Amino acid sequence: MTTLAVDCMGGDHGPRVTLAACRAFLEHHPDASLLLVGRPADLQGLAHPRARVVEATEVVVMDDAVEVALRRKKDSSMRVAIQQVKDGAADVAVSAGNTGALMAIARYLLKTLDGIDRPAIAYPLPNARGKATTVLDLGANVDCTEHHLLQFAVMGSALVAALANDDRNPTVGLLNIGEEVIKGNEVIKRAGELLRAAAAAGDLNFHGNVEGNDIFEGTTDLVVCDGFVGNVALKTSEGLAGMIAGFLRQEFSRNFLTKIAAAITWPVLSAIKNRIDYRRYNGAALLGLRGLVFKSHGSADEVAFEQALMRAYDAARNHLLDRVQARIAHAAPLLVPAATARPPEAAATATTI
Amino acid sequence: MTTLAVDCMGGDHGPRVTLAACRAFLEHHPDASLLLVGRPADLQGLAHPRARVVEATEVVVMDDAVEVALRRKKDSSMRVAIQQVKDGAADVAVSAGNTGALMAIARYLLKTLDGIDRPAIAYPLPNARGKATTVLDLGANVDCTEHHLLQFAVMGSALVAALANDDRNPTVGLLNIGEEVIKGNEVIKRAGELLRAAAAAGDLNFHGNVEGNDIFEGTTDLVVCDGFVGNVALKTSEGLAGMIAGFLRQEFSRNFLTKIAAAITWPVLSAIKNRIDYRRYNGAALLGLRGLVFKSHGSADEVAFEQALMRAYDAARNHLLDRVQARIAHAAPLLVPAATARPPEAAATATTI
Repeated sequence: MTTLAVDCMGGDHGPRVTLAACRAFLEHHPDASLLLVGRPADLQGLAHPRARVVEATEVVVMDDAVEVALRRKKDSSMRVAIQQVKDGAADVAVSAGNTGALMAIARYLLKTLDGIDRPAIAYPLPNARGKATTVLDLGANVDCTEHHLLQFAVMGSALVAALANDDRNPTVGLLNIGEEVIKGNEVIKRAGELLRAAAAAGDLNFHGNVEGNDIFEGTTDLVVCDGFVGNVALKTSEGLAGMIAGFLRQEFSRNFLTKIAAAITWPVLSAIKNRIDYRRYNGAALLGLRGLVFKSHGSADEVAFEQALMRAYDAARNHLLDRVQARIAHAAPLLVPAATARPPEAAATATTI
Repeated sequence: MTTLAVDCMGGDHGPRVTLAACRAFLEHHPDASLLLVGRPADLQGLAHPRARVVEATEVVVMDDAVEVALRRKKDSSMRVAIQQVKDGAADVAVSAGNTGALMAIARYLLKTLDGIDRPAIAYPLPNARGKATTVLDLGANVDCTEHHLLQFAVMGSALVAALANDDRNPTVGLLNIGEEVIKGNEVIKRAGELLRAAAAAGDLNFHGNVEGNDIFEGTTDLVVCDGFVGNVALKTSEGLAGMIAGFLRQEFSRNFLTKIAAAITWPVLSAIKNRIDYRRYNGAALLGLRGLVFKSHGSADEVAFEQALMRAYDAARNHLLDRVQARIAHAAPLLVPAATARPPEAAATATTI
């Protein structure tokens, strides 16, 4: 039995969406149980033999400052859900709440793993091969050294392998502005050297440098970058997708003939929409902590939130935490400098994804 | 009369495309003249009273190293075209060749303007408002300080105003991972302070931080970022657009019915394609030099290359160089630290866009 602690109050829609997704998830996964975390009065909509309410009196809202979420709302549903993981009552926590708050609370309660300086957020994006490219970091760390990028590569490899329940080494690309090793800024060049050394030691399946277009082309299973660049790439993609969707709506609703064309084309367009539907790829992993936490998109609907639950469930039952720790142990000779080579830096500024 | 020096040998297609575009451009612009730079034998296809061949015996090819282009091919069409600008024979040079080589040669021959440490590449991208968002830098500078970002903002404002032949101050966004001033890495936070100071001094119309999605939403006329981030944003967008186009092709060619749907929908889809067609936005400006140089996409066809010629022509006749210098002079009190505050850094690593 795999147990998920679900922050039922988080996200743009709260229990209306999270409870519906939990119900569907329980129906589809007979060996899973849920801890529904939140205000009991709001969680009466779901009674199920494998679901139990865990009370939390407060809610972290989207515009709460990280400090407020962390210091003032000590009985928030987000925090109580993560506490379940810490206490061993749940295998993984899932929340659609404020990313910055979730990362800060998870880091505070669970602590980072040995060999890891900073947790990272790993996000799956659809690619042209019909699979997902996992990109990390996506906003948790805005000033990264080459050692952080190596840590991301090691942890991300464990994530991709766990979600596929596969022992093969996923391919890793280092996001850069050209394929040649001489390209990029100084951090990226040094990261390339470290990743090649890790590949030589059997820690990674390093493909080499990749460029922005490779994310959606699916050139590698994993794309590693600092959180600033990753966040810009993600948001830029969302902006472009939104623009194209807007143009489609405008052009198809222009007149009577275009509306007929829209009706005729509907099955084709919805097939395409389905292929790039972010909901099918919902569920980002917070990696590098002594416990599993997954983040759903805040605007997730029922389908999307269930997807995040499924990813969290797969990660937990395929022992993601053990896999991350095993890979860190294997890569330890290369990871050692991460903690000692440079002075500790300012706390990462988390962002909303 | 505005005179353009055209590197007719550059780009993926060479004279076949460049000459055809030059012919169309001359027809549409009766007060423009062209210097057609390249091997005379290859340029016989265009005889026009306002076009004159300027001989260059060598060609910079796409995979030439910057060093080779700069040191060994001293009679390349790219270099001779830029030399026309330096000599005052042309108002602006246009090339579809290797971006890194073009930037290096332009910088070597023309030198940078006082107050500018590094030239930047400014690229227009289509936005949801049906206009263009100009993004810079897009790959020329991979490790930027806040002073460089301020220089980009000042030069980019001059570009947008010149292309619109407008004296209003274009709105400027600083690319970040959140709108709040506390977001971002240290360079970005300091850049935000500088840009606010420049706005207070009347040098800029600074909107504030923007995120990746704002590029395609058209939130500001200009988006400023370092070349690494800008290049990743551009390439990621190209990757996503390519994926969506691929899915459209696959889904519409799936069977007989979808092929009929494609035929019926063709006018609508081509209207959308036209709205996001990069060819309509072709023509990146190299800013910060003592002369005007425009870069066309290497794969440009005739329509796209003519667009780059038109942008170069508009920039030249609307006195882009004077505007850049006037804005630099106005912002001089804030720009002074750029050259002195920090030790000179390693030469920028240029990239291909």
